[in-house]
Amino acid sequence: APPAKPARLGLCAACHGEDGMARIPGAPNLAGQKLDYLREALRQYRDGRRDIPVMRAATGPLTDAELDQLAEWFSVQTPSRAAQ
Amino acid sequence: APPAKPARLGLCAACHGEDGMARIPGAPNLAGQKLDYLREALRQYRDGRRDIPVMRAATGPLTDAELDQLAEWFSVQTPSRAAQ
Repeated sequence: APPAKPARLGLCAACHGEDGMARIPGAPNLAGQKLDYLREALRQYRDGRRDIPVMRAATGPLTDAELDQLAEWFSVQTPSRAAQ
Repeated sequence: APPAKPARLGLCAACHGEDGMARIPGAPNLAGQKLDYLREALRQYRDGRRDIPVMRAATGPLTDAELDQLAEWFSVQTPSRAAQ
């Protein structure tokens, strides 16, 4: 079954889209990205190993479980060429 | 016209695939990723702002033009679900 929409998705979606296709310059597409990569990237943003202020602010309040819900959500979205 | 295959593609392809679909755990898919994001990410790896030793080693010898050829190559590849 596809994952339920994460409670925290709204904040991500402003830049990355609910569907994981980025809405703004500089933000990466996340649709179909590898789950393990997304899980690790979110932890790196949260703890500052990847030092991107907006991502640190967005992930700072989130639990491991919330990060994993978001990683799973984006990993199962289908990339679309239209948004490239 | 699609970009010519970059001279430096072989080193990337071992982990990310020539088609930008990752071959190993921990490596992200790059197919269809946004060009501006890829260009900036490669510079961050080369100068250490993104501190991933294997990526710093891989990008260290490359010129801006070579990085951009790689970014363009991967940005125009089509993501495939099969490799997820």
